[in-house]
Amino acid sequence: MIVVMKVGHTTEELDGVVARITEAGFRSNLSRGVEHTVVGVVGQPPPDLKDDLEVLAGVEDVIPITKPYKLASRDFQPVDTLIQMKDVVIGGPELVVMAGPCAVETEEQVMATAKAVKAAGAHILRGGAYKPRTSPYQFRGLGEAGLRILALARQETGLPIITEVMAPEDVELVSRYTDILQVGARNIQNFPLLDEVGKAHKPVMLKRGMSTTYQEWLLSAEYILAQGNKQVMLCERGIRTFETYTRNTLDVNAIPVIQKLSHLPVIADPSHGTGKWYLVTPAALAAVAAGADGLLIEVHPSPDHALADGAQSLTFENFQALMEKVAQVAQAVGKPLAKTSANAIQSQRKRA
Amino acid sequence: MIVVMKVGHTTEELDGVVARITEAGFRSNLSRGVEHTVVGVVGQPPPDLKDDLEVLAGVEDVIPITKPYKLASRDFQPVDTLIQMKDVVIGGPELVVMAGPCAVETEEQVMATAKAVKAAGAHILRGGAYKPRTSPYQFRGLGEAGLRILALARQETGLPIITEVMAPEDVELVSRYTDILQVGARNIQNFPLLDEVGKAHKPVMLKRGMSTTYQEWLLSAEYILAQGNKQVMLCERGIRTFETYTRNTLDVNAIPVIQKLSHLPVIADPSHGTGKWYLVTPAALAAVAAGADGLLIEVHPSPDHALADGAQSLTFENFQALMEKVAQVAQAVGKPLAKTSANAIQSQRKRA
Amino acid sequence: MIVVMKVGHTTEELDGVVARITEAGFRSNLSRGVEHTVVGVVGQPPPDLKDDLEVLAGVEDVIPITKPYKLASRDFQPVDTLIQMKDVVIGGPELVVMAGPCAVETEEQVMATAKAVKAAGAHILRGGAYKPRTSPYQFRGLGEAGLRILALARQETGLPIITEVMAPEDVELVSRYTDILQVGARNIQNFPLLDEVGKAHKPVMLKRGMSTTYQEWLLSAEYILAQGNKQVMLCERGIRTFETYTRNTLDVNAIPVIQKLSHLPVIADPSHGTGKWYLVTPAALAAVAAGADGLLIEVHPSPDHALADGAQSLTFENFQALMEKVAQVAQAVGKPLAKTSANAIQSQRKRA
Amino acid sequence: MIVVMKVGHTTEELDGVVARITEAGFRSNLSRGVEHTVVGVVGQPPPDLKDDLEVLAGVEDVIPITKPYKLASRDFQPVDTLIQMKDVVIGGPELVVMAGPCAVETEEQVMATAKAVKAAGAHILRGGAYKPRTSPYQFRGLGEAGLRILALARQETGLPIITEVMAPEDVELVSRYTDILQVGARNIQNFPLLDEVGKAHKPVMLKRGMSTTYQEWLLSAEYILAQGNKQVMLCERGIRTFETYTRNTLDVNAIPVIQKLSHLPVIADPSHGTGKWYLVTPAALAAVAAGADGLLIEVHPSPDHALADGAQSLTFENFQALMEKVAQVAQAVGKPLAKTSANAIQSQRKRA
Repeated sequence: MIVVMKVGHTTEELDGVVARITEAGFRSNLSRGVEHTVVGVVGQPPPDLKDDLEVLAGVEDVIPITKPYKLASRDFQPVDTLIQMKDVVIGGPELVVMAGPCAVETEEQVMATAKAVKAAGAHILRGGAYKPRTSPYQFRGLGEAGLRILALARQETGLPIITEVMAPEDVELVSRYTDILQVGARNIQNFPLLDEVGKAHKPVMLKRGMSTTYQEWLLSAEYILAQGNKQVMLCERGIRTFETYTRNTLDVNAIPVIQKLSHLPVIADPSHGTGKWYLVTPAALAAVAAGADGLLIEVHPSPDHALADGAQSLTFENFQALMEKVAQVAQAVGKPLAKTSANAIQSQRKRA
Repeated sequence: MIVVMKVGHTTEELDGVVARITEAGFRSNLSRGVEHTVVGVVGQPPPDLKDDLEVLAGVEDVIPITKPYKLASRDFQPVDTLIQMKDVVIGGPELVVMAGPCAVETEEQVMATAKAVKAAGAHILRGGAYKPRTSPYQFRGLGEAGLRILALARQETGLPIITEVMAPEDVELVSRYTDILQVGARNIQNFPLLDEVGKAHKPVMLKRGMSTTYQEWLLSAEYILAQGNKQVMLCERGIRTFETYTRNTLDVNAIPVIQKLSHLPVIADPSHGTGKWYLVTPAALAAVAAGADGLLIEVHPSPDHALADGAQSLTFENFQALMEKVAQVAQAVGKPLAKTSANAIQSQRKRA
Repeated sequence: MIVVMKVGHTTEELDGVVARITEAGFRSNLSRGVEHTVVGVVGQPPPDLKDDLEVLAGVEDVIPITKPYKLASRDFQPVDTLIQMKDVVIGGPELVVMAGPCAVETEEQVMATAKAVKAAGAHILRGGAYKPRTSPYQFRGLGEAGLRILALARQETGLPIITEVMAPEDVELVSRYTDILQVGARNIQNFPLLDEVGKAHKPVMLKRGMSTTYQEWLLSAEYILAQGNKQVMLCERGIRTFETYTRNTLDVNAIPVIQKLSHLPVIADPSHGTGKWYLVTPAALAAVAAGADGLLIEVHPSPDHALADGAQSLTFENFQALMEKVAQVAQAVGKPLAKTSANAIQSQRKRA
Repeated sequence: MIVVMKVGHTTEELDGVVARITEAGFRSNLSRGVEHTVVGVVGQPPPDLKDDLEVLAGVEDVIPITKPYKLASRDFQPVDTLIQMKDVVIGGPELVVMAGPCAVETEEQVMATAKAVKAAGAHILRGGAYKPRTSPYQFRGLGEAGLRILALARQETGLPIITEVMAPEDVELVSRYTDILQVGARNIQNFPLLDEVGKAHKPVMLKRGMSTTYQEWLLSAEYILAQGNKQVMLCERGIRTFETYTRNTLDVNAIPVIQKLSHLPVIADPSHGTGKWYLVTPAALAAVAAGADGLLIEVHPSPDHALADGAQSLTFENFQALMEKVAQVAQAVGKPLAKTSANAIQSQRKRA
């Protein structure tokens, strides 16, 4: 942490800063430039010290140097975190695809979608039983009945499942059904929920909030890691900008940035990242080309009858077409689509 | 809801749109312009129908017309909601000030601050016992012990108290101590929490999220209202923009906009809205001039030793000075500071 | 400028950084913390050196300390810049109001508006002869014919005039007619234009761009000051955010921030800052309460027939009502409306 | 254009709206819903009519339906615009790469870079002789001397050149030297400049501004097209968001969106879109995967001695590596890198 003194500060002001640093238990290191006097705080001061120093007389600015997250940092753990889901590994040399409906509506809908996405080569089934909805008058999910449908679909297809949990008191229940706990964008700083999934024994996918900085995102991951759960992956799902033509702006820069700063796998969600079904494929290909470890895609048997997010859901045919293109780009960037029985068959068919 | 067809759409596509509207239980109203064919949906379709229509072939755009919130709307309730706190009314013809420390730290700190803000003319004591913190390594509040300290300060000073609740399961406990439940910016779309405070029998102050639109904000209020709790006030606390010199950008436009769209009182928080103590007074005056129903101000006996938000907290002296200026501007815009024994004494002193 | 080395950097990397600093003509100052090694660059390095150091091996971050603007800075000139317009002073102890139509349309329109705003107590007449319009198919202004109409209105009413200049080659022509040159938000980084108005012998009002940071804004002012023109004022006119209900978000924080960082006067434009006529008055009052040195307000005889910005223009009656409220708030914050013959008469009338 | 009346509007208010539409020369079409009365404006009203109607009594909202741009729209011209540069076509089935230094510094620097980028397979040489710089104290380009150096490099390598023009009065001079005129992000709404390049007989690359919406971007292109210059391409170069870790946020969504709305080619600039050299390659690959028609890349012989944008410039080696990866992804998405003698040789080498 570095304290920049104002031009023309007094000796008393400088002494006050040094005294406050000493009081907090750190040594200080003085450096006088041509224009500015700078005081370095030696050691690893807590982030809060910034606030305390900023209000002192004579202080122009306080600049933190140490990153405020530790466990999520690549400095702390240089090697990639790998998350094993049956025979699929997230964060390794192969690309993983999670697909399914936005919301669980009926057994038929989920079962048909699960089979379709499996046939197209997807590795994990997504579907929401607890749905965060902007309006209280929208469909809010089937709750535990929805979880049971997802579990049936897993039994039928063998696909692991990922589903969202919205409240701390639901973590235990949802964990009993799901393979991966999803924390949604709106809960990126729901700290009681982060604490609770941090105590769960299931991998967690933490979606970036609509206006969450990279640093805040990693600090939210730190909450989970600090509770002992090391199986965390991050999901870029688009940010809120001034542009309203798309629902969100998919931030592809986030993918290589997070991979540089952290060892945690990065998934991309081009469905929420664009909000329009005809943009999902180009955005998915972009994310794969930028190095994403996985994709999260909304697929629905009949998007114009979906109870949630119809506008951004793909039909089975469109998802199949997407998967073929994803396989090409994934190959081109050296991170091929993880093998499944389905895509083994497809590549045979192609070659024939 | 209005469906705009693409230039060059086919008759089949138009029939498909009309059929889908009929299937959803609404009548449609066709209008052919020089360039565009437009289909009106007659009635009050649910917001979800937009998604369903958008994905249909031949559709260019779907434009909702009815506001998605009802109970929060001024169309629904033309007269202002008034929230009574002992002898103070929020949302009426007088300005109300809530002040106190960001976080409850010790009994001494809270008691000293409570007395100081009361003496300066504040009406309600604020203080956090449960603190949402960006990093898991920061001070997260004293919990119930903090609530007890607040209750003591209320007993001592007679000031009603407002404090934050962060998890649905804490609503009952916090309600036992506080006069107003605060829902923080990070929980603006924590829907289980909104449902729960909607069932509580205490007024709720709902802070706008960092990137929450006016419409989303009112929809979050709608969650609370829909559960039966009509005592809701809204708090503008600055939004996230590209500018990083200030912690947030206080959106003064929000004050008259919300007052036009809704009957709920609007409070402004210039402490979070700026993030720097020397900007709090001008921003507070701006909010009052724009018509705010109240202010929420962070005050601390010793800001450079605060466990949270020191940089934006006022000393007792600075808060006293702020209150004098606030009284002037409040008077000038015809919404005078609500009377208290403290400011009665002050005005006597002034006149003498 | 401070260079933060990566955790685990090599001695060669550190030597490379020091060598690059020496090559650029500066001394370096080494400081080893518990975690990070930090190299201070002693002196006033040019902003470009940041780019050069950032790409070196072993460098984590480069943090500039010195502000990149000089002439615009309050460190350089502690006393406020005053801009004299006949008997009105901008930036002094009194508030100045500039008002008039968005675009000059006809002599009748300008003359009627000039008389109305003068009668209501405005000090300066605004009006655009060269209009930047988002679409090439919108009305783009009368050009020199418009300037002549403004000059006539000045002759008739005695009000100084302010009008926009959009191209470097027009600066000389526009300067012949106007009292203040306005540089619009879209030209905030039109550097050839900034250079040219910097050579003119007229005061300049520089509007903040839609997404211009405080620092960039002051650097654009620096362009003008660096050419020798010291008569610069800044105009906050709202920024672009995620919120689209209002045309822009008026950033009231900007007013005290700029007044702290710089000695240049700050004007607020609540017409563009909100985009809706019924929000102009509360936003204007907010700006005055926050300490603005002046206001810029759009007024039109018949807003629903305006050739530009009708939605945000006030009628004569509404402007008159605004001025009365502005006078109250200006008085309350100790920066009264500058006297004119018109408001002298009004205060007489009031007292009578 | 559709006018939504307020709930509870009067008959007089409705008549007033209809009368104003008639006065503007359009027919109106009335539709009464359960809650809202809606008035359609039949015909193609100018965008300005929205402003006029919005201020009328009883009006809740005015919603434009017709897109405000014509010539730039795919409705107007369904087939892609192709721009021919010698033997390279921009906007066709092959990917085009423009590369070179941010700023022209010396003949040696440009010549070395031109040869290196040509050898790596680039098609067009970029380099700035007129540099828009945030601070007046930064290097602002060599002007005409720089143009002469670029022309020499073209003569030597055969690569067409692209360079920026910043002022209307420079368009004629710059056109004499360059093959493509670049209009920079800061000049996206410099309308006199857009008019002037619209009269030039050279292709124009129009960079998106830092906070320009898709619609505004296309309207700025419309300015150029409306002057008769049909050779326009658009360049996505990152937008300004709340995230400051990267210089800008590359908006990959923009690529398929613009290709859907318009027939103009879309280029991506991952150098400005990220601002950090180690992010340029993943961002470039993402843009290609999303369907970009071309790339614009900053390359410098010695990035840490660059006079501009060193932090985001690639060395020759890094650019060579980028081109190899770009070729793979371009192939995978069916838009292969346009052939040059250089990459013909490389593919031979590869096969050998």
